[in-house]
Amino acid sequence: MNEIQNIVLIGAGNVATHLGLAIQKTGRRIVQVYSRTESSAKQLGGKLKTHYTDALEEINPEADLYIVSVSDSALKVLSIRLNLNEQLIVHTSGSVSMDVLRNSSLNYGVLYPLQTFSKSREVEIFETPICVEANTNKNLEKLKGLAADLSKKVVEINSEQRKLLHLSAVFACNFTNFMYSIADKVLSEHNLDFNLLRPLILETALKVQQVSPAEAQTGPAVRREERIITEHLALLKNSPELQKIYRLLSERIKGIRE
Amino acid sequence: MNEIQNIVLIGAGNVATHLGLAIQKTGRRIVQVYSRTESSAKQLGGKLKTHYTDALEEINPEADLYIVSVSDSALKVLSIRLNLNEQLIVHTSGSVSMDVLRNSSLNYGVLYPLQTFSKSREVEIFETPICVEANTNKNLEKLKGLAADLSKKVVEINSEQRKLLHLSAVFACNFTNFMYSIADKVLSEHNLDFNLLRPLILETALKVQQVSPAEAQTGPAVRREERIITEHLALLKNSPELQKIYRLLSERIKGIRE
Repeated sequence: MNEIQNIVLIGAGNVATHLGLAIQKTGRRIVQVYSRTESSAKQLGGKLKTHYTDALEEINPEADLYIVSVSDSALKVLSIRLNLNEQLIVHTSGSVSMDVLRNSSLNYGVLYPLQTFSKSREVEIFETPICVEANTNKNLEKLKGLAADLSKKVVEINSEQRKLLHLSAVFACNFTNFMYSIADKVLSEHNLDFNLLRPLILETALKVQQVSPAEAQTGPAVRREERIITEHLALLKNSPELQKIYRLLSERIKGIRE
Repeated sequence: MNEIQNIVLIGAGNVATHLGLAIQKTGRRIVQVYSRTESSAKQLGGKLKTHYTDALEEINPEADLYIVSVSDSALKVLSIRLNLNEQLIVHTSGSVSMDVLRNSSLNYGVLYPLQTFSKSREVEIFETPICVEANTNKNLEKLKGLAADLSKKVVEINSEQRKLLHLSAVFACNFTNFMYSIADKVLSEHNLDFNLLRPLILETALKVQQVSPAEAQTGPAVRREERIITEHLALLKNSPELQKIYRLLSERIKGIRE
């Protein structure tokens, strides 16, 4: 039988934790957790009620799949040190080419869940797109089989497309969160409560679940209300860097409906 | 009795529509809708099953409250042309001082729902913070009475604070949506589907419902992954303006945890 049943998690961070829990719910087994720090390995091993190790040479060599969820820099080092012969190995990174795993095994691929994971929140993996890539069709089919049990949205994405997805995610998630940060800063400097903005932030994200961001664009810039823009820049007079961001983004937004 | 019962809506856009429907649910009456375009007045009048007019001189002079929800530029013109003697009048704008209504009546104020309203979506007004301001304590109490039936979050905010709130909302809503737009552009230029990002966008907004944006910050910039940043800038080589935005925001994010 070709199906993936026994899985080793390499890395014990947020992605490994969320994937591990979701995989167990499909009935598959996490047979071992590896982390280079023993406490992390132990913690996730405990959460998943399975074996754990902080020694690479103790990694179980007989699993059907090895999922590497570590930082991009650690990934390169690990891929050289790991030698799994023919066992299927994947990483979960948005920005590293599949080929980094060529050193580790004859069979390799990528399983990239397009989501932001945090310690404090449980994420609906079933709603999270999972992007898969593999070095052979057979490996691709195996990964798709697993991914389809984890998520309702499985897409085949090559390494180049994945990098573009990751770039777009930087705008949609990291830079978006930074906009929240700036808003928080503006408010806290005047003793106003960030709670006031939370419903607006949520509604802004909910709106583009249905329409395109271009259609959803509102605000002074798209309406070209120069008086308000000037007033806002004046309110930011003590933060030349925020003025610069405000000005740059407003100029670009004005161009949207040209 | 001091309570606001009969209300005239001046303006028939998204804010007027959502407020009108929410007000009716509190048991109060929208006695008339005014819009300078007859078709809009008729449409909202129909939706609220009430009278409507496109003639300023036909506005019912005996309501308890007049809510002006029009564009900021129209607001100035209207405030000069409206003469309500002593009837209470408010506007709903984030960026215009309360005093603009001094010309219209002896009793005036602001009722500012901090939310983005659109035609296509129903918004939970009860979760939306409503900021109130008035020229007398008595008027403030009246507005608070109405606002408390509309929302669980009513805050007294003066005109200066309201402008800061509005500025922060530009970052948290308008600029955030523009980040979604850029992500959409990056994807569509490479025939990738914006749907792939929608769960990430929603989770990014959900995350800061619980933690601060500074705590929620992730991505290459906050981790100072220069290799990825350089790669992303290379992927944007055909869009110098997007490179500029990417570089500027990344530089600022790098500074967050210093």
